[in-house]
Amino acid sequence: MQRYFLTEPYEAKEHYTIMGENYHHIVRVMRMEPKQQVFLVFSDRLAIIAEITEVTEEAVYLKEISKEQAKKELPVNVTIACGYPKGDKLEWVVQKGTELGSHKFIGFPAKASVVKWDKKKLAKKTERLKKIATEAAEQSHRQFAPDIVLLEKEQELLDVFSSYDKVLIAYEESAKVGERSRFATALSELVIGESFLIIFGPEGGFSPTEIEKFQEHGGIICGLGPRILRAETAPLYALSAISYQFELV
Amino acid sequence: MQRYFLTEPYEAKEHYTIMGENYHHIVRVMRMEPKQQVFLVFSDRLAIIAEITEVTEEAVYLKEISKEQAKKELPVNVTIACGYPKGDKLEWVVQKGTELGSHKFIGFPAKASVVKWDKKKLAKKTERLKKIATEAAEQSHRQFAPDIVLLEKEQELLDVFSSYDKVLIAYEESAKVGERSRFATALSELVIGESFLIIFGPEGGFSPTEIEKFQEHGGIICGLGPRILRAETAPLYALSAISYQFELV
Repeated sequence: MQRYFLTEPYEAKEHYTIMGENYHHIVRVMRMEPKQQVFLVFSDRLAIIAEITEVTEEAVYLKEISKEQAKKELPVNVTIACGYPKGDKLEWVVQKGTELGSHKFIGFPAKASVVKWDKKKLAKKTERLKKIATEAAEQSHRQFAPDIVLLEKEQELLDVFSSYDKVLIAYEESAKVGERSRFATALSELVIGESFLIIFGPEGGFSPTEIEKFQEHGGIICGLGPRILRAETAPLYALSAISYQFELV
Repeated sequence: MQRYFLTEPYEAKEHYTIMGENYHHIVRVMRMEPKQQVFLVFSDRLAIIAEITEVTEEAVYLKEISKEQAKKELPVNVTIACGYPKGDKLEWVVQKGTELGSHKFIGFPAKASVVKWDKKKLAKKTERLKKIATEAAEQSHRQFAPDIVLLEKEQELLDVFSSYDKVLIAYEESAKVGERSRFATALSELVIGESFLIIFGPEGGFSPTEIEKFQEHGGIICGLGPRILRAETAPLYALSAISYQFELV
């Protein structure tokens, strides 16, 4: 069943009105008609099953049938921060990272990042990534479409450390020397509802200076197992482990 | 440091001889010289640090310096079986699945698989996937390059169920009804050294008939968390969870 994300918070109403892009998808792409049902997901993560009552030239009107009961979101808020990688890897990470439950994605220019994007390019990319995140959230039946923030300076990332309950940095050198306990320890200390920032390097990894800065600001460096993971794989490992720890075990 | 996979098992020797593709890479691509070091990984998963003693027109000769101590392999043998997905998703799963520790990949024609490959095409694809697996194993510092087997009939997959200690099938419908315990339970019952087959469907998922057959042959159907994962993401979730459970926790 199709799922549509709305920008307003939930409010019990006689009917809900859909216009714009969602209207276009419902009416022109899916060609839906009265009596058919969809999921409507509100900005405060509440989702309902709604039935179409009327379709006009400008809007689709729906009434609520029931609330979506199942909890689809990770019980901890995870933000994935990636040093800008090459090519379209950031698109991959956002798409798969959204399926896997990430709440937010931050891109930042790491020292080893090859790509250099100016303000204009960053704005365009942000729009594109937002679309990818929303589409992936719909496909994976989430109750929330992740935020996307692309930074111009690495310092801006350091500045937000304090707004998280825990900050971890996946560091290849830690994995190489066999560091394996900090990630699991950090997960075991997280409480439901807390927020977690995990930082991943670009293809060239992090420099010792960057690692020092991260640690000075309260970040914990850790390995993610004995095998070296690519820049685009490591975030998926972390999210899967978090889901497994909090949702399956 | 470069890593090269050899086809022979380890044997303590005065010197090791490299020819063929590995020779080409060492001499023509990396332009290595005597005194430089590489990892040599033998077919029985033992890896050593070796130093080049001589380079001739036909061979590279090396002597052992020390054994690679760290254990890089998952302590349980995991085989990932995928119903043939569209496009190059299988390449993607093999590459990232190798980074994440899979020991073997099996491809098979599921009912909903759109692609239809004949014997000749399967042989070509097997070669290609083997290259991808070996390269990914080298990059991720593994001590083993995964096997690739591409089947012509789904029945051939059912025939190998009995050679595994546990067989799990990731089933979207299980996830939708909130089934969340079987995967974790299966992992908790696995003993170090045991083998585990996990089966994933193509984009269209599995039919009820396929699920019935899997279960008749002893397979356990399960969900992988509350969010619906794409065909190429689910195997990575499973492998990450297994690594987390057996290597980090």
